[in-house]
Amino acid sequence: MKNYSKTNVTGTERVELHDILGLSGAEISVNYMPAGAGVPFVHAHKQNEEIYIILEGKGFMDVDGEKVELNANDFLRVAPEAKRQLSAAADSSVKYLCIQVKAGSLEEFTANDAVLS
Amino acid sequence: MKNYSKTNVTGTERVELHDILGLSGAEISVNYMPAGAGVPFVHAHKQNEEIYIILEGKGFMDVDGEKVELNANDFLRVAPEAKRQLSAAADSSVKYLCIQVKAGSLEEFTANDAVLS
Repeated sequence: MKNYSKTNVTGTERVELHDILGLSGAEISVNYMPAGAGVPFVHAHKQNEEIYIILEGKGFMDVDGEKVELNANDFLRVAPEAKRQLSAAADSSVKYLCIQVKAGSLEEFTANDAVLS
Repeated sequence: MKNYSKTNVTGTERVELHDILGLSGAEISVNYMPAGAGVPFVHAHKQNEEIYIILEGKGFMDVDGEKVELNANDFLRVAPEAKRQLSAAADSSVKYLCIQVKAGSLEEFTANDAVLS
């Protein structure tokens, strides 16, 4: 079996990459919301930290009742217990990635996890 | 303490988000390589699965001796044990995210990990 998998994502349909890529340490979704639209429910997580990455456009995240503005090139970490709800701006769509990882699961990284050939 | 943290990343300097955002389940770096440049070493990982997300430009990843082409909107999973080396294309820069997560660490996600208010 190959040690890699690859896919290309374009368009505005939500795409969930966990099964497509065979991910075992994260779920990553690619999302698009037209201007004025929003996730229709508030949610939190049991275990997972989320990182939202804004690729294009504008939106905002309500986090525990606070409105956080989101613009292109923003990276937003949300703790599992936070009550969150994402919306596009009234006058702009928003394209974003949502990464879910188990909070506290990373033990080492970069130089400490690397094996040089 | 707030249940979220946010930063904005522009420019071509490598930025590592683990400490900036207080991530506990992932390291995420934002990277840029000019045309013709490449990572000067081959590496693998002890524990971590990597996901490379190509934001702009073109490049290629050598994975275990196989040359994998990379274009904008590509998502590439690389297993911990794979020997990898990323380069920009000869005629194009490449801007990309690299996400490190512990392989096998995700236990549940999306609906199974959600708590609705």
